[in-house]
Amino acid sequence: MQQSIEQWDVFEISLEGTKEGNPFLEVEVKARFTKEDQSIEVLGFYDGNGTYRIRFMPRSVGSWKYETSSNCEMLHGITGSFECVKAKGKNHGPVRVKDTYHFEYEDGTPHYSFGTTCYAWTHQGDALEEKTLDTLRSAPFNKIRMCVFPKHYIFNENEPIYYPFEGTKEEGWDFTRFQPEFFQHFEKRVGQLRELGIEADIILFHPYDEGHWGFDQMEMEVNLRYLKYLVARLSAYRNVWWSMANEYDLMKKLSMEDWNTLIESVANEDPYGHLISIHNCSTLFDHTHPLISHASIQRQEIKFVTEWRKQFKKPIVIDECCYEGDIPYIWGELTEQEMTNRFWEGTLRGGYVGHGETYLDSNDILWWSKGGTLHGRSPERIAFLRRIIESIPKDCHEPVIYQPAWENTACIGKEGEYYLAYFGIYRPGKKLLELPKGHQYHIDLIDAWEMTI
Amino acid sequence: MQQSIEQWDVFEISLEGTKEGNPFLEVEVKARFTKEDQSIEVLGFYDGNGTYRIRFMPRSVGSWKYETSSNCEMLHGITGSFECVKAKGKNHGPVRVKDTYHFEYEDGTPHYSFGTTCYAWTHQGDALEEKTLDTLRSAPFNKIRMCVFPKHYIFNENEPIYYPFEGTKEEGWDFTRFQPEFFQHFEKRVGQLRELGIEADIILFHPYDEGHWGFDQMEMEVNLRYLKYLVARLSAYRNVWWSMANEYDLMKKLSMEDWNTLIESVANEDPYGHLISIHNCSTLFDHTHPLISHASIQRQEIKFVTEWRKQFKKPIVIDECCYEGDIPYIWGELTEQEMTNRFWEGTLRGGYVGHGETYLDSNDILWWSKGGTLHGRSPERIAFLRRIIESIPKDCHEPVIYQPAWENTACIGKEGEYYLAYFGIYRPGKKLLELPKGHQYHIDLIDAWEMTI
Repeated sequence: MQQSIEQWDVFEISLEGTKEGNPFLEVEVKARFTKEDQSIEVLGFYDGNGTYRIRFMPRSVGSWKYETSSNCEMLHGITGSFECVKAKGKNHGPVRVKDTYHFEYEDGTPHYSFGTTCYAWTHQGDALEEKTLDTLRSAPFNKIRMCVFPKHYIFNENEPIYYPFEGTKEEGWDFTRFQPEFFQHFEKRVGQLRELGIEADIILFHPYDEGHWGFDQMEMEVNLRYLKYLVARLSAYRNVWWSMANEYDLMKKLSMEDWNTLIESVANEDPYGHLISIHNCSTLFDHTHPLISHASIQRQEIKFVTEWRKQFKKPIVIDECCYEGDIPYIWGELTEQEMTNRFWEGTLRGGYVGHGETYLDSNDILWWSKGGTLHGRSPERIAFLRRIIESIPKDCHEPVIYQPAWENTACIGKEGEYYLAYFGIYRPGKKLLELPKGHQYHIDLIDAWEMTI
Repeated sequence: MQQSIEQWDVFEISLEGTKEGNPFLEVEVKARFTKEDQSIEVLGFYDGNGTYRIRFMPRSVGSWKYETSSNCEMLHGITGSFECVKAKGKNHGPVRVKDTYHFEYEDGTPHYSFGTTCYAWTHQGDALEEKTLDTLRSAPFNKIRMCVFPKHYIFNENEPIYYPFEGTKEEGWDFTRFQPEFFQHFEKRVGQLRELGIEADIILFHPYDEGHWGFDQMEMEVNLRYLKYLVARLSAYRNVWWSMANEYDLMKKLSMEDWNTLIESVANEDPYGHLISIHNCSTLFDHTHPLISHASIQRQEIKFVTEWRKQFKKPIVIDECCYEGDIPYIWGELTEQEMTNRFWEGTLRGGYVGHGETYLDSNDILWWSKGGTLHGRSPERIAFLRRIIESIPKDCHEPVIYQPAWENTACIGKEGEYYLAYFGIYRPGKKLLELPKGHQYHIDLIDAWEMTI
């Protein structure tokens, strides 16, 4: 009987090949997948112990065939086929841009992004990582920002379980040899997120290393080999978003030309065109870059969503607008009210806002870095907002000016039909709506904090 | 027995003169006041019915003599004297600039400005005006913004009791003849504020007329005559601040050159050098102007106090950062929390913030325009803040950076000795203070909303 998988699931070819020399450098393996007039070539990768894998995410139902090619004879010319069947359940395919400013899954289901951040959650060991997954199961988030490389930074100075390269911190890394266990572990977590319906916003580079391991200061040749390897391993996971970096502008070794090279590499290697962006510290990236799919922004001033939409003409994701918590840093001590406020403000300006949580913890387990458990009071308010956003008509997510005197009010909807306005720190009283005449309106008063309608 | 008045009170000479012709245009009367080596000339004014008055505010104790001069023989060459005694009670003299960014009364008592706004309160009739005074008696405000001219604007479309010129709206005004009753009434209110210890921030021009009466579009000759007359009447009131305009940039008839002429006129006519400023709508005035004593600003972005101090090097008064209320305008629908927040933020950045209240009222009596009664919950929090500000050491009102990582925190105090920091929407937890070492600190935790220490 022929193997059968769902649309947008991972079909994997596993092959035995050579262990000789340095397979990471010396062996190339790929496969061409064909169905009717479709033909897609995808790159495989060496997974250690003589095992090579080629992963493919079929986007259309029907019978697919494949044939491998390689400079290693044992991996060359292998053929096969599988049946791709219609997706079901939570499987809606990868997320893509819809109508300039929004997202949808490939099956046409809208995706309203409600992200959170646990930068180093996959580097904490199984007990804590499984607790994080448990938390995510009932949390309101459908995207999570997470770093490939381990993190060395305040509240996260523990060593990871796995390292991406062979070698040690003390004796140096062999940047020509990946540690497959590191990537196997990482992609297991990405797969678990996929089963939960959560997008993995994978951060490819970050500056929270500063010579501790040196993964932030590798040569461009190594960077490119790492990207190629990672993309080969992960691009068949439908829930992958590529985040080129966190706080790219703190990575002083990389020039803008380097970033451009890295972005092009990811875009070229990824056969599926997953979303790509890059996240700033103080200087926003120029998100008009043709290979950048959406803006990924760190800023406190949420009302600029209105400007950024005009500037970038892409979906605006404010991944970081400070976090709910009480650590002594301006970026990690928002009240739960203000975190909630920023979600409403950004969402109702036609953007997508990201959450994070940084409460002081005697064991230094802060959600924003390590995952674990949520302690804050904003997540349930974010869940309330998400329910509202998912329940309003599909064509009512664009900003509208619902009253001339109120140009500054965050409001989405459809002229003359539907308005979802957010007043924030402003609290208008009665008799204030100047909506287009000739319609009947039903008005619901929503309390964003008390979660009442 | 010789007449005796307190320092900074009003000494008034009342004289009978001609009623013939147009005394407003034709008669000039002034007096020279001398004491030892001091000599001050002050202008008098015609108060109707053949009465002329010359008002003088003595600034130093001792025996003062005077002699009048006039082009009207009946008013010329009159001499007299009075005794000036030490001020007592709430009388601390006029407010002046202290140490570049702050204020003090002339007797050296600090003045921490906590203003409110009732633009047209003196145009509402005695019942409401006396209620306003009653409210002010127990309110936390020591300054009030108030217009000379009546106001025609939303929530204030009633005609005033008095008009500044002879004539009527329908038949036109005789801009060469003032109505003394209008000014007598206005200065009675200014005097009552003085007795309450409240500074009258007198708005000389404003745009809320737009042809209804035309007081916003008079010829420069009329503007200058009006200023000379008003300054002659009011400058002897110690609690006067001159606000050249509210939203000067909405008064399209007046050019920047005109404003300069008007500012020079007030500065030249006022023998006491009362504070002078000018309030913007969207475009801040260039408060580096040498005759402007302090910045009078309308802006929501309170944190810019830090920048404005650097820019203007004068006291920063944000008279208008929106009002607590629920009218359907962005400037009049702040929550009580946000009004309180802005007071703390601005004050602890080394500025001075102004209050206003705009709750919908079935009789259109909004505090911001008409006065009356306060309904909001910010005034008692402003009172709490004022008590704290008045209780901290005198040399601890300058901004300090109390922790390098926290440059953005509003904080006043004295390096190594005293810190009053405001966290606002940020809520740091424990173990966060990086204060200069080698000192012992006592820490009070202040809840700005619950008003607990």
